[in-house]
Amino acid sequence: MRARGESAARVLLTDHPWPDLELEAQILGAAGLELVAGPSVAQDEVRIESRVRDVDPAAILTCWAPVSAAAVAAPTSLRIIARLGIGLDNIAVEQATRRGAWVSNVPDYCSSEVADHSIALMLAHFRGVVALDRAVRSKGWHNPVLSGRRISSLCVALLGFGRIGRVTAARLRAFGCRVLAHSRSLKDAGDLAEVADLRTIQAHADVIMLQMPLTPQNTNMINEEFLGRCERRPLLINVGRGGLVDNDALIRALDKHQISAAALDVIAGEPNPPAALLERTDVILTPHIAYRSEESLHELRRRACEDVVRAMGGMAPLNACNMPHAVRAG
Amino acid sequence: MRARGESAARVLLTDHPWPDLELEAQILGAAGLELVAGPSVAQDEVRIESRVRDVDPAAILTCWAPVSAAAVAAPTSLRIIARLGIGLDNIAVEQATRRGAWVSNVPDYCSSEVADHSIALMLAHFRGVVALDRAVRSKGWHNPVLSGRRISSLCVALLGFGRIGRVTAARLRAFGCRVLAHSRSLKDAGDLAEVADLRTIQAHADVIMLQMPLTPQNTNMINEEFLGRCERRPLLINVGRGGLVDNDALIRALDKHQISAAALDVIAGEPNPPAALLERTDVILTPHIAYRSEESLHELRRRACEDVVRAMGGMAPLNACNMPHAVRAG
Repeated sequence: MRARGESAARVLLTDHPWPDLELEAQILGAAGLELVAGPSVAQDEVRIESRVRDVDPAAILTCWAPVSAAAVAAPTSLRIIARLGIGLDNIAVEQATRRGAWVSNVPDYCSSEVADHSIALMLAHFRGVVALDRAVRSKGWHNPVLSGRRISSLCVALLGFGRIGRVTAARLRAFGCRVLAHSRSLKDAGDLAEVADLRTIQAHADVIMLQMPLTPQNTNMINEEFLGRCERRPLLINVGRGGLVDNDALIRALDKHQISAAALDVIAGEPNPPAALLERTDVILTPHIAYRSEESLHELRRRACEDVVRAMGGMAPLNACNMPHAVRAG
Repeated sequence: MRARGESAARVLLTDHPWPDLELEAQILGAAGLELVAGPSVAQDEVRIESRVRDVDPAAILTCWAPVSAAAVAAPTSLRIIARLGIGLDNIAVEQATRRGAWVSNVPDYCSSEVADHSIALMLAHFRGVVALDRAVRSKGWHNPVLSGRRISSLCVALLGFGRIGRVTAARLRAFGCRVLAHSRSLKDAGDLAEVADLRTIQAHADVIMLQMPLTPQNTNMINEEFLGRCERRPLLINVGRGGLVDNDALIRALDKHQISAAALDVIAGEPNPPAALLERTDVILTPHIAYRSEESLHELRRRACEDVVRAMGGMAPLNACNMPHAVRAG
């Protein structure tokens, strides 16, 4: 426990995968808050806990870094943990709720980015863009390796049909695709898609897109059993969370041609995913950037900081994800 | 001039960038025609002329191989030159017309393929798919090099607004893009796009897509002057013909950052495009396969052969591109 005296309340930014901190410093500074920034790359749980103990922040902004129960418990006073993103799987939300701290996220800053990234990966596969660019450079111009399907003939299944799924479905309909949608609670998808169960998806889908958050219930849902029941050798696209897919089962399914390819923006084990996946030419890889564009990053940073300012001023954040048991005075 | 006797009329297939000839042999064989196939890869003008003199075909099917005035003049009797494709820049059409031979093409077998390929290249650039896949494999997971723009914020200009342009515009509208369209004869594009002159396109376009055939009038239209007037450092996408773009001017414009990148399915000089283009990381390359999918290839081959059968039976081809001066008996 350090003496705080008259100094400004501190906001710890655990990690920031962008090069500058001007926007954060400006918004927090205008509210009289002191920004303390960690390294740009996310550190592990133990280092974050130690950092939180050292800084004793009244607010924590985190992108990818884990904010564990111990990290949540450490500060003298903690008003808010604001996720620079959507998913909360790296934050000990229950612990925050119990000690009276808000948890916020930015739920819809990148719906179109993730939808468009999903479609970019799908088109890159079926139009051979990554494979052919590589082949032209290494083997010359004559490489008619493409046997892609006509996009309008494809049946695309969207698993997790939230904001991102709805944007994706609208785009896919313009390409003439058949669109199937599945989520636990989905009853009707209007004109955008046909609601389908997993068996129907396994029987008909040429593409399966994972666009849901990670929960204890859906961890490793794409496993050996799921992949073994796919009948049309689909392309698997994951822009949700790595933990949705069992990597070993995925590699075996690719080896056995149960699925024709995978396009992964997220992989269990990132930033150190299995080398066996990185070496494959039937996998397209992007390093967890589906959420990212100039416009979405600006919106993400601004809105997360504004919710910190709100919570520090005694208001509820606009995008509260919990209801703290008793918000303690700072 | 060889004696033909009672043998079946011959159809010379000059080149075929697909692995088998079952479909061609079946359709032509059923009509009593003999298929004589050249190598899969297109040969040069002189070799094709020599091949035509040797085979003395009554019909020529060509994909990329040049069918020169001399090749058109050589056969004893020539009923049709059928292009396996859309553009006729590799066929001496006037010479065919004068000697009474039909020239046909297959005009709309791949509109959706080329439109979808254009969008695949655009998304691959703005979502960083090719660059990031390469970076993840060579440098590991942490490469937030993407500073892509939100797709819905882009202004996309389509040059040559035919069937392909209209399909492309409909897709782009679903992404929320502003769409500009330009062609010499275009007066109105309905709800699909705003008709724009080249100055407007140079001032506003974030993406310029070339989707027109090559003519003497538009050869090298994307030259130093055109590129120098682009104000928003656009991405240049060429799925039309290599000859639309002056390669040296393109390379200089990339060096000077007058344009931010290029995505090229066609390049002047292909299949041996300038090494300086192949080495650049601000260029995405696919080897002239925008037209290609399982479905489009089947349609292309079937329809071209069917027009050969029609012409050999004394009928006009469905997709006649000329009006022969006097169709001579074979």
